[in-house]
Amino acid sequence: MELFDIKPVDKVMQHAIIDKIDNLTKPKGSLGMLEELALKICLVQQTLSPRLSHPCNILFAADHGIIEEGVTVSPKEVTWQQLSHFSHGGAGINFLCDQHGFRLVLVDAGVDYDIPANRGIIDMKVRRSTSNFLKGPAMSTDEFMICLERGARIVDMVHADGCNIVSFGEMGSGNTSPSSMWMHILTDIPLADCIGPGAGLNSSGVSHKLDVLTRSLENYQGDGTLIDKLAWFGGFEMAMAVGGMLRAAQLGMIVIVDGFIMTSCYAAAAALAPSLSDYAIFGHSGDEAGHAKFLKFLGVKAILHLSLRLGEGSGAVCAYPIIQSAVNMINNMDSFKAVSVTKYF
Amino acid sequence: MELFDIKPVDKVMQHAIIDKIDNLTKPKGSLGMLEELALKICLVQQTLSPRLSHPCNILFAADHGIIEEGVTVSPKEVTWQQLSHFSHGGAGINFLCDQHGFRLVLVDAGVDYDIPANRGIIDMKVRRSTSNFLKGPAMSTDEFMICLERGARIVDMVHADGCNIVSFGEMGSGNTSPSSMWMHILTDIPLADCIGPGAGLNSSGVSHKLDVLTRSLENYQGDGTLIDKLAWFGGFEMAMAVGGMLRAAQLGMIVIVDGFIMTSCYAAAAALAPSLSDYAIFGHSGDEAGHAKFLKFLGVKAILHLSLRLGEGSGAVCAYPIIQSAVNMINNMDSFKAVSVTKYF
Repeated sequence: MELFDIKPVDKVMQHAIIDKIDNLTKPKGSLGMLEELALKICLVQQTLSPRLSHPCNILFAADHGIIEEGVTVSPKEVTWQQLSHFSHGGAGINFLCDQHGFRLVLVDAGVDYDIPANRGIIDMKVRRSTSNFLKGPAMSTDEFMICLERGARIVDMVHADGCNIVSFGEMGSGNTSPSSMWMHILTDIPLADCIGPGAGLNSSGVSHKLDVLTRSLENYQGDGTLIDKLAWFGGFEMAMAVGGMLRAAQLGMIVIVDGFIMTSCYAAAAALAPSLSDYAIFGHSGDEAGHAKFLKFLGVKAILHLSLRLGEGSGAVCAYPIIQSAVNMINNMDSFKAVSVTKYF
Repeated sequence: MELFDIKPVDKVMQHAIIDKIDNLTKPKGSLGMLEELALKICLVQQTLSPRLSHPCNILFAADHGIIEEGVTVSPKEVTWQQLSHFSHGGAGINFLCDQHGFRLVLVDAGVDYDIPANRGIIDMKVRRSTSNFLKGPAMSTDEFMICLERGARIVDMVHADGCNIVSFGEMGSGNTSPSSMWMHILTDIPLADCIGPGAGLNSSGVSHKLDVLTRSLENYQGDGTLIDKLAWFGGFEMAMAVGGMLRAAQLGMIVIVDGFIMTSCYAAAAALAPSLSDYAIFGHSGDEAGHAKFLKFLGVKAILHLSLRLGEGSGAVCAYPIIQSAVNMINNMDSFKAVSVTKYF
C-alpha cells in the first residue's frame, strides 16, 4: 500500500547538524534532550535552521463494542459529550491548544451518536461504534483500510494549510482495552503487563478487564496477519490515527506521539512502515501500566513525565514548548566562533 | 533575621481548590502534576483563579577560589565572558527567556573581572572571587549576610515591577564544588555521592575533586554553625540566590528552582526558613550525580527530566510553560456543572 512507503530520513547532513549544536555557547551536550530533539527535527526537515509551522492536534473520537463487557467505568455517552465539548472549548485539550497555538481538528471516526453537522466536527464516521471483539472482529480489514485512508486525508488537509508538526489525540470510552490488545500483539509482552486501570478501574475491575481481553484473544479466529489482528481488536479512532501518522511521515512532517493509546497506534504504524520512527517524537510517558514498558520496547524516550492520563492529545501538546525550545536553541544561540567566549566543556 | 521569617501558606482554602480541580471536565487526577502545581500556586496566591505575572530569571555570577585546585575543566574567564554574552543575547538562557516572556536580570555577585558599567549588568560585587576554601573560608559570615541582603534587594526590585514568579540562575566556573559541599552539609549524604563531573570532568578529575573537597572539609576550622559552614564553603552567587529565594517567599512569590546548584541554594534557604517549601516549584532534575538523591532527600519532584546541565536558570525557565499550563487548566477548563458532560472517572 502506498501509505506504507515512508522514506528514512537522509543522514548526509547529520555531521553538520551535530557540529552546529556542539559549537553553540554551552558545554557540549549540556542541553540534553533539547539537543537530541534539534538533531531529529533538522534531519526530518533537512536543514540547519528548522521551523515549526502551524502545529495541529487531530483528535479522533469513536466508540467501542467491547465496553458492553464492563471493561471501563466511563459511560459510553461521555465520548460524544466530550467531543461536543471540545468543539465549544473548555476541555483539557482546548486550554493546551490555545496556550501553544495549536489548531484543534475534531473528527468523528465512529461515535455512537448523531453529531450535529454544524459543530465543526469532521464526519469520517465508519459506523456507530466497533463491534464487541470478545465475540468477533471489532471491524473488518476493509474498514481498517478505510480508516487509514481517512486519517491520511485529514493530514493532507492540515498539511495543505501549512502544518509541518502534528499530534494525534483520541476520545473513546473504553479505548485502553483495544490499545492493550494492540500493545500485546505488537510487542509479545504478556497481556497482564499491557493492562491498567484506564480512566479509573479498581483492582477487581482490572482483573475483570484482563479476563475479558484474555478470552477475546482466545476467541480470535482471523487469518493471523498483522492487519487482520489490528482490525479485529482495534478502534476506528485508533486506525485513523495510524493512517494519519503514516501520511504525516510520508509528507515529511514531525509526528508528536501522545500517551498510551497513541503509543499503541504509533507501534502499529511503525510495524507497517518502520521508517516512521525517524519522524516521531514522544510527548509524554504516563503512569498507565505498560506505557513505560511499551516505550522501552520501542527504544524511545518521552519528553515529559507528568502523570497525565487524560488522552485527547494532551501529553503531546503539553510537550510542544520543549520541542519549540529545541528549535529555538539551534536557531537563536550564538556559536563560539561568533562571540568572544572561550570554548568550555 | 527578618529575612528568615517566612509565613507558611494558609491552607483554609485547600478544600475549595481541590474541589474546583476535581470538578473540571476530566477524569479525577488525570492531569497529574498540572493538578499538583495548580493547588500549590492557588495556595500561595490564596485564590481559585491564579495569575502568573512578569516572570523573571535572576542570574547571579561569581568566581570561586577553589578552582585553583583544579576542580573544573572550565577556565575562569568563562564566567565573565558568559555574563557579558548573556547581556548581548545569544546564550542558552536568552532563547529560553525570550520564548517564555521572562525578564532576564543579570547580577555581578563577585566576578573576577571589571565588568563595564554600560552592559545592564547590576553591580552587586562583594569582591573579585571567593577565597580558596581548601585553605580557609571562601567568605566571611559578614559577607554571607551581605549577599543575602543583596539577593533580597534584587527580588524587591522585580517584585515592585509586578513579578510574582521568579527563577534564579547562576554562572560561575567551578561552582558545582561549593554546591556539593552545601549538599553534603545540609543532607549528611556522603560527599562522594554529592559530587559529579560538573561541566565535563573525566573520572580521574572527579576523584581529584572528591579528594580536594574531602580535605577542605577536614581543614574546616569554623564555629560549626550552619551559617558559618555555608559561608566557609559557599559562593557569592549562591548566597545571593539564597537571599533572593527567601525574600521572594516572604513577598508571596512563586520560586522556580533550577538544577543542582540552585537546589543546593534552595536547601540552604529552606534550612534557614523551612516554610520556603510552600512557595517552591522544582523545574528540572538533572543527571549531575547527586541531584536526584538531593531532590529525594528534600521530598520533592521536579517538573522536567531533560538531562540539562547548563545552569543559568535554564531548567527553571524551560519548565515555565508547564507551570503556565497548570494555571490555564484551573482558569480555563469548564466544570462538569457548567456543561452537559456526565462525570466520568
